[in-house]
Parts: sequence; C-alpha cells; structure tokens
Amino acid sequence: MILVNGAVSEVLPAMDRGLAYGDGVFRTLRLRGGHPLAWRDHYRKLSHDCAALAIPCPADEMLEGEISRVAAQEPEGVAKVIVTRGTGRRGYASGHATRPTRLVMSFPAPAVGADVSRAGIRARICALRLAHQPALAGIKHLNRLENVLARREWSDPDIAEGLLLDHAGHVIGGTMSNLFIVENGALATPDLRSAGVAGVSRERVLRRAAQSGVACSVCDIPLDRVRRADEVFVVNSVIGVWPLRELDGRTWTPGPCAERARQWLDEAND
Amino acid sequence: MILVNGAVSEVLPAMDRGLAYGDGVFRTLRLRGGHPLAWRDHYRKLSHDCAALAIPCPADEMLEGEISRVAAQEPEGVAKVIVTRGTGRRGYASGHATRPTRLVMSFPAPAVGADVSRAGIRARICALRLAHQPALAGIKHLNRLENVLARREWSDPDIAEGLLLDHAGHVIGGTMSNLFIVENGALATPDLRSAGVAGVSRERVLRRAAQSGVACSVCDIPLDRVRRADEVFVVNSVIGVWPLRELDGRTWTPGPCAERARQWLDEAND
Repeated sequence: MILVNGAVSEVLPAMDRGLAYGDGVFRTLRLRGGHPLAWRDHYRKLSHDCAALAIPCPADEMLEGEISRVAAQEPEGVAKVIVTRGTGRRGYASGHATRPTRLVMSFPAPAVGADVSRAGIRARICALRLAHQPALAGIKHLNRLENVLARREWSDPDIAEGLLLDHAGHVIGGTMSNLFIVENGALATPDLRSAGVAGVSRERVLRRAAQSGVACSVCDIPLDRVRRADEVFVVNSVIGVWPLRELDGRTWTPGPCAERARQWLDEAND
Repeated sequence: MILVNGAVSEVLPAMDRGLAYGDGVFRTLRLRGGHPLAWRDHYRKLSHDCAALAIPCPADEMLEGEISRVAAQEPEGVAKVIVTRGTGRRGYASGHATRPTRLVMSFPAPAVGADVSRAGIRARICALRLAHQPALAGIKHLNRLENVLARREWSDPDIAEGLLLDHAGHVIGGTMSNLFIVENGALATPDLRSAGVAGVSRERVLRRAAQSGVACSVCDIPLDRVRRADEVFVVNSVIGVWPLRELDGRTWTPGPCAERARQWLDEAND
C-alpha cells in the first residue's frame, strides 16, 4: 500500500523534484504489530535530514498516522517514508517548490531467516569508492547511485552485504548498513562526516553503548583494522544486526558484542 | 506535455527507481521548428550515460518521435528526456528492474533575452565543493543534489550562474553549464574525469574548435586561471553561450571567442 500526500495512490507527479534531481530524503523502518519501531528516532533523523536540505518536514503525528494506515496491510513488515521538495519548474533553482511530497509505503518483511542473524553473513569489499562530500554526508537522501552501482558488483545470493571504502581507504559502511567493529571488548564505528549514511540503528547502538559503559569510538577505520577486529557486524533498521562470518576470506565466529547490540536494538522501541 | 513510456501522462509509478535512488539519466535540449537541436549528439550522449549505469537505452527513433510529439506544443521551447532503470522492488539491488521508464516532456523556452547572451552574465563562486567520484563523473544522472544545494546559495535574479569548484580548488563548471576560458586566443575547459557533467554543447565546441584549428585544452583549471583569462563563457544546450561579464568583482567585456562558439553551436544542427 502506498499513500502519496495522504491519499492511496500508485503514482506521483512526473515533475516531482525527487525524480528530477533526487531532491529529497527517506527512511526505512520495521513494523511490529502494525506500529513503527523506534519511531521517535526515525522522525528525529528524518527531520534532521529535511532541515539539512531545507525541505519542510511533514508533521510527526501525520506521518505516524499514515504509517499506521499502510502498516495495516503488513503489520510485521517494513515501512518506507520518502519526503521530496515537491513538484517544481524545470531547473535546479528550488525556491518556488514549497510544498513537499510525502510517500508512505509498506512492504513485506525481507525473506531473511533468523539463522542468518545468528550464524552471520558473508560480505565482500566493493570496488567502488565513496566520494567525500561533507555537504551531504550522513544524510539519507535520494542520491543513491553510489549504493546502486556498488550493489551491482555482485550477484552471488550467498553474499549478503558489500563494504564500501572511501578514496582514502577508510571503511565507511555497508551498501545498506552501518558497520561496527569490536576490539578487546570496545566498539568502533566509522566517522561519517565526509561520506556514508548515519542510520538510526547506528545511533541507537552508540547511545546504548554509552549508557551501558561500553567504550565506542567514532573514527576513521582502515580496512586492515576491520580484518584484524575480534568481531564485525553491520546494522540497519530492517535487518537489525548481522554479524560477519566471512569477509573476502577472513572468517569470524559471531560473538557476544553483536548479540548484545541485537538486544539493545530489540529493547526500548518507542 | 509529458509522455511516460509513450503515453500522455502527468504521473509515474511511485516505485520507480528514478525517484527512490536517482537511478537514471537525463537530457535537456532546445527545440526549433518542433525538432530537437543536435539530436545526434544528444542521443549518443544519452546512450553513453545509460551504458555507464547499465540501463538499456530506449531506441533512437522512438525517442525522437516522442520528442516531436511533445514539441508540437512548444515548437521553439525546450525538451527534456529522462530514462530511469524502471520500477523495482525495494532495495539497492537492481537486477530485477529490466524495463526502463522513459519520460519525454516539453517546456516553454526560458525567458532570457538575446541581450543577456550578448551583454554577458554576472556569475558567482559557489561555496559548495563538488565531490570526486570518477564512477559517476561526466554522466548526466539524476543524482543532482550538489547542483540543487549550490543553486540555493543565491537568490539575486541578476546573477545568472554559479561556478563550482572541486575540493582541490579546480573549477569544474557552472551549476547547469560547462565552462570555457580563453587565453591568448586558445580555449581551455575543465577536465571532468572526477566531477561534473560533460554536456553536449561542450563536446560540440571542442569538436568545432578542433575542426577550425583553434587550440583547446582539457585540463585542471584553478580559479585564479579563470580570473586571469581574457574571456570566460559558459555553455549548455538550452542557453547556448553566455559570456561572463562579471565574476565576484572581476569584469570582462564579451569577446570574439564566445561569439565564435555561439556560431559553432548555431550551425550544423542535425
């Protein structure tokens, strides 16, 4: 089910700037019992990302209500929210586009078994290098060709995720997930000030780690450091936590920190 | 008038990957007497850009026919062609999306007098720096947030264009145009292997310069070199040639090379 500006629809205006320029942002989140998980965090992030592009963010209650409507069809599924700058005239100038377009949709849950979450995934290193763009880094915007091209690098269904590096050789994250490594019981996750998407699950793990007295640094992480780590796991709002059991030949046994992160993400969903 | 996959329509599927990820490319071109100017060049470039993203390019004759249909409403206007990877499932993986979506639209010509083309424009230097991304550089894809953000830096209607630099301080082009400078009668235009859009008008000027025995180098151009140039002009398929008469205080008198480039672009339109 899709709601476009609150009305059931399968289409949006061809002149929308979301299509023309990727001029918008989005969120993808899990539904449980017909309700969005961690909605407070998702709305805060959506609002932040809209502000970063100077797009007026739709009201919290309106979006939450629309998510509940689409969730009726997929109460244990996935919801996606897209907010664009709206329809406009041709051209990059956007001052005339003042009414954002919002799309709220639901999907079935991905067909990934709990076994994957426990046994861990195989991952690879993508050849594509992410660009440094501080003006857009962290934002979950609609300019995602880097992710699309990186995801096209492999078709082996046994490989669940690809890690993306920047031009300096630092690991930024997965094509659709954020990365954590574990070193002597301490967590580290890539600094995303120049590239990548700062996801809500990453933020929640960081918050819960701080509350639990688990050290967690946000820093530049070269690939070698990932290979040497005791545990490596990726997170996002749809998959939760995926420990890596293999990365281009290096293998791990899923460990206690990934399990703990899973518990953090499972609890306290408002 | 808008044609979506050949049918008159104002809308496109909400699940189109052009919206979700900016997963597509586009062209903007002038119409004259209801026909697209320089269509051979535009189709070649569209086809090249589609190939770069592994999107099947719609057939030349089909697109040209659809442009002629929309051009009937704006025979002296502007046409825009968008080709996306098509509708798909949620997620970056794109192997299942095999039927591209094409949009062909017409617009009135921009309300810019011939006086601007002769007297020259005022331009500014944008604060936003373009990212280095060789995997996408040159391609006129739908991930255009850098251009949108740069264009939001000014609202003074007397400033017609903003120049964009990369992080190394090289000028890449305008927000919507390609740049040429003139030094002792020789042309130079920025190398676009790491950033920017390699437009058809730039390509045509390069080709005609070579045919005419006018030296034209493609190279890294620091901002200082632009300021010191004898002439500076920007080109695109809609505006033609705009000489710069002012760039953040530095002034020029429109010169003979810009005029010559205008003649090159006016002639031999197939």
